[in-house]
Amino acid sequence: MAAKFSELELAINTLVTEFHAASEDKSPALNLEQFQRLVTAQLPDMVKISGEDDGVSKLLQEMHVPEAGPVTFAEFWGLVDTLATTQFGLQKREKTAKCVKCLLL
Amino acid sequence: MAAKFSELELAINTLVTEFHAASEDKSPALNLEQFQRLVTAQLPDMVKISGEDDGVSKLLQEMHVPEAGPVTFAEFWGLVDTLATTQFGLQKREKTAKCVKCLLL
Repeated sequence: MAAKFSELELAINTLVTEFHAASEDKSPALNLEQFQRLVTAQLPDMVKISGEDDGVSKLLQEMHVPEAGPVTFAEFWGLVDTLATTQFGLQKREKTAKCVKCLLL
Repeated sequence: MAAKFSELELAINTLVTEFHAASEDKSPALNLEQFQRLVTAQLPDMVKISGEDDGVSKLLQEMHVPEAGPVTFAEFWGLVDTLATTQFGLQKREKTAKCVKCLLL
């Protein structure tokens, strides 16, 4: 890879390396504890599970992952996909909202 | 959102904002020219299309996007998904390769 990476390539790389870093034992999937730690530490604003005892099980249900795990990269990516799509919707509304403001000025 | 974002949240946000930035006219999809500029500028290492005349049409075919575009965020995200999965495979091999080395030492 060229020495200088683009923002987008760095972002994709971060998503992959953070998942790898969460699985200390080199396994391609995360056990429940590793997954909970990853979500709590790395997605504190986008995924709210810290306050709830059954927070992780609800999240796994929404991700269609068996309650006992493990969580594969593809299943983790499904969560990232949902979060990105939500972000895209929020930013799209913000962009149109700004336009409404600029019409009113 | 809290003032301090995690690496993972910043990465997801970058993927969304770069797509939005590529569509100057506030539209939720990119025309061919905007998409080509995004890929050439932001994915120079992960997607090789610059040297080939029909590079973009081949890429769109692989992405199952009509030749005339436009490219929606969901279709862009399909490309990101493929790139991330490839990166994950590469890093997994690297990790196991390192282990083989540490076995040999």
